[in-house]
Amino acid sequence: MSIASQTPRTSARDAATGTVGHGVAHSHGRFITAVEDALREFFAGQHRTVAALGSHYVEAVDELTGFVLRGGKRIRPTFAWNGWIGAGGDSRADYADAVLKASAALELIQACALVHDDIMDSSPTRRGSPAVHEVFAGMHRRRGWSGNAAKHGESIALLLGDLALCWADDMLRDAGLKTEDYKRISPIWSAMRTEVIGGQLLDATTCVSGDESIDAAIAVDRYKTAAYTVERPLHLGAALAAADGRLIYSYRRFGADIGIAFQLRDDILGVFGDPAVTGKPVGDDLREGKRTVLLAEALRRADAVWPRAARLIRDGIGTELNAADIERLRGAFTELGAVARVEARIDRLTTRAIEVLDASDTAPPAKDRLRKLAYSATRRPM
Amino acid sequence: MSIASQTPRTSARDAATGTVGHGVAHSHGRFITAVEDALREFFAGQHRTVAALGSHYVEAVDELTGFVLRGGKRIRPTFAWNGWIGAGGDSRADYADAVLKASAALELIQACALVHDDIMDSSPTRRGSPAVHEVFAGMHRRRGWSGNAAKHGESIALLLGDLALCWADDMLRDAGLKTEDYKRISPIWSAMRTEVIGGQLLDATTCVSGDESIDAAIAVDRYKTAAYTVERPLHLGAALAAADGRLIYSYRRFGADIGIAFQLRDDILGVFGDPAVTGKPVGDDLREGKRTVLLAEALRRADAVWPRAARLIRDGIGTELNAADIERLRGAFTELGAVARVEARIDRLTTRAIEVLDASDTAPPAKDRLRKLAYSATRRPM
Repeated sequence: MSIASQTPRTSARDAATGTVGHGVAHSHGRFITAVEDALREFFAGQHRTVAALGSHYVEAVDELTGFVLRGGKRIRPTFAWNGWIGAGGDSRADYADAVLKASAALELIQACALVHDDIMDSSPTRRGSPAVHEVFAGMHRRRGWSGNAAKHGESIALLLGDLALCWADDMLRDAGLKTEDYKRISPIWSAMRTEVIGGQLLDATTCVSGDESIDAAIAVDRYKTAAYTVERPLHLGAALAAADGRLIYSYRRFGADIGIAFQLRDDILGVFGDPAVTGKPVGDDLREGKRTVLLAEALRRADAVWPRAARLIRDGIGTELNAADIERLRGAFTELGAVARVEARIDRLTTRAIEVLDASDTAPPAKDRLRKLAYSATRRPM
Repeated sequence: MSIASQTPRTSARDAATGTVGHGVAHSHGRFITAVEDALREFFAGQHRTVAALGSHYVEAVDELTGFVLRGGKRIRPTFAWNGWIGAGGDSRADYADAVLKASAALELIQACALVHDDIMDSSPTRRGSPAVHEVFAGMHRRRGWSGNAAKHGESIALLLGDLALCWADDMLRDAGLKTEDYKRISPIWSAMRTEVIGGQLLDATTCVSGDESIDAAIAVDRYKTAAYTVERPLHLGAALAAADGRLIYSYRRFGADIGIAFQLRDDILGVFGDPAVTGKPVGDDLREGKRTVLLAEALRRADAVWPRAARLIRDGIGTELNAADIERLRGAFTELGAVARVEARIDRLTTRAIEVLDASDTAPPAKDRLRKLAYSATRRPM
């Protein structure tokens, strides 16, 4: 039996109408399950159309289904959902099911972003498993097919990313939202997609054009991460509850700051993180040559006070670094004060975001939950 | 000034409410202009969101805009529009503007399909100009950026294809359709996208898996071309006019047959066509190794009666063929009767499609127009 044709384990309704907004870890687990059940149900609903095209398509879509269901923190649905609750949405109302599905649809945009990102970055793995393009390259090799296996894998992954992007729309549209709510959130949904694709494009361009400015790195963080991960999901949730402009303004300021802080934390982890926790090799971002704020801070400082370190960094970044190289670069980043500066920036952004949240009219249980999410997404690992 | 910020040359309304349904070449030209104006207007409407992300994004989106406006036969909007007229739509009504925009949105799905196809096929050109990924690879080289230029070009093209896919939805949603019409066509729109992506996936898989069957080639034609180019656009047009099930059934049968016949004609042109007309190098499909019905017919016959020709074809297909190789393969295809068999298939499909159309309740001016489109899309070039 294909994954897509399995029926949901629990009713999305049951789990969604729980105490998700109350910040209890147990109920957050139930929310995650509900999101995954909604996704599973959506995939099951696509099975007939897909099966009409034959087994190759079914096999590929099963791989996409597995990829989407296999993991991830469901952070975007979590912000959308809590944005709705915080704006007065009632998790016990019948309508919560529609909001849950609309929130879960964000995971399909994310699936496209990850699958396409992994093609662009030639990343071999994702979430500890082979990246989707690698899965199909491996299939090509095992079956002794003709032509270039890597190229074939990329083609299939590209198409599955496209499919996920289309299905995100389908899932949102069929979530069961009221027509007026659907109309209200549509421009936000559209802006979010245009922004995240633009953020990816800025990222790709900054990476090769040698733009070392902090501003360029911040712009990527703003659009590739913050708008898409926190700000717009909260905005969507608020709009679903027909929130007033003041709350939306607060959500967006909170979301933009926390989103950037979250990315800055991720940048530090990308250089200093424990592979067992991050799921990525040590110093992966250095090897990839990611143009992060951390890097920009290090270079700016090095150019001013320590030209040798600047050369070391510029020569090393984006190349096949060994463990000793990575250790050396890490040391330079720390000694240059770049890590401390980024930590200070995270603190500043988080503090400001929490102040905005606290001063807002966000309903208390969601306010607590958003505060906790803000801290957990940006704090130093223990 | 960026292309995207230019205002439309003519009002979409003016040109759309013309005599498009009357089969006059002149008015078809006006329809094409109206489609392009609608697209131009849509792009202009995106400018602000795009510009907020900075000049790199504007530059890339301008390239996409130019690609979409630069050409193409607008065949999908034409079928959608005539499907609507044939089901009783009134080209002079105010509502025609919304239908025109919804029809034009199909060109944005097509833009994604072409841009992504060219990445998958590593095609250097499209419509006589460099393919989008080549444009950005060239930019990378000219500017002396770091890293791999070809890889960078593919990344940007991948993202622009994603953007076009998102924008197709946005354009449809914002076309101004009545809510009940939008709801009626949404499942058709969704099925069409899931089918065309599946068709591309089958194509990519058939190409490498060595499936030489006529059935596999027909399945690709059915989903990659017919459903997406003719059947579903007509279906969308009919649904916009709230057509009854009988007319939709007729449209779909007509569309599936004409769509496959259209692809079979394209397959013959891909091997025998005049480069000046097709815009592609001589015998391009042979070099690419496309698994067409024409190829399947040739191999089936060769295996039965002429093993040497079968070897010649299998060894040559998908390799760097010179002019003499191509001439030899062409000769084999003709002598094996493959061309005649595909021509007969085109005739059969076209005749059957026209019979279905003639027996249907399609409103007369659109019926004439669809008949002409069917012939022009499938006939031998003069």
